[in-house]
Amino acid sequence: MSNEQLYIAAVLHSWKQVLGRYSDGIAPLTDEQFQKRVAPGKNRLYYLLGHLIAVNDRLFPLLGIGDRLRPDLDEAFITNPDGTLPDPLPAAELKALWTEINNKLTAALERFTPQQWLEKHTAVSNEDFAKDPTRNRLAVVLSRTNHLSYHSGQAMLTK
Amino acid sequence: MSNEQLYIAAVLHSWKQVLGRYSDGIAPLTDEQFQKRVAPGKNRLYYLLGHLIAVNDRLFPLLGIGDRLRPDLDEAFITNPDGTLPDPLPAAELKALWTEINNKLTAALERFTPQQWLEKHTAVSNEDFAKDPTRNRLAVVLSRTNHLSYHSGQAMLTK
Repeated sequence: MSNEQLYIAAVLHSWKQVLGRYSDGIAPLTDEQFQKRVAPGKNRLYYLLGHLIAVNDRLFPLLGIGDRLRPDLDEAFITNPDGTLPDPLPAAELKALWTEINNKLTAALERFTPQQWLEKHTAVSNEDFAKDPTRNRLAVVLSRTNHLSYHSGQAMLTK
Repeated sequence: MSNEQLYIAAVLHSWKQVLGRYSDGIAPLTDEQFQKRVAPGKNRLYYLLGHLIAVNDRLFPLLGIGDRLRPDLDEAFITNPDGTLPDPLPAAELKALWTEINNKLTAALERFTPQQWLEKHTAVSNEDFAKDPTRNRLAVVLSRTNHLSYHSGQAMLTK
């Protein structure tokens, strides 16, 4: 492997590892168990999963790899806090959606060449990217991996 | 910046961002506030900080950048769960140690050349590294960044 391929392998491994651990953790949960809160007065596991789905779904346009699957979920899981709106889907459907979105995302990440990882994400203008080339796809994926780790730590508290 | 420098910049930015957010979060806490649990029956903020210190302190030998500052803390914060042993230090001293260890660590990471990031970590043998060159320093730092994100998400629940 070239040095650039080794960098990418580490980033992809990190992404898949964090995704795998969280996904394994929620796989056996029933709809009822998804109603548990990570701590008193804090988010339900159900809301966290919806939130993670919406955030990852936003990566398709942000990384320039396609359209979102479910932009309609932002209202319930990003714009509003837990408990504001009725739950839009059963937890089992959220779980299936989580798998679908991440399989599609990961496949797209695996197709990026080293150069494509360093291309700008779509929320930065050409001018700003010329001034700051660190606003690239790689930075976005590292940030979302951390975001998932952050909420995984919370979800784990219900064990 | 070269492509390799851009990869490293992203990894370092991610490390410093996660470190900065957690550090800012605990900076104003009093010794008493450090006794809060992240959820009923779960770790105290005090224990989490000690745990994060011990885990990051282990990076010095693991990355081959020097000796540990406080190997004596493993007993209280890694080997045993919260509440097993008496607290070894006041929280204010843990906070100072956290800053000291991370400043030293981050300075060492900033000195790594692109090639040094891809060198093996010290827990893997030459033979195993020859078979799997992804067991490098970069993989370790990404993993520890995720570890810190994970516990940051828990600590945030006490807000």
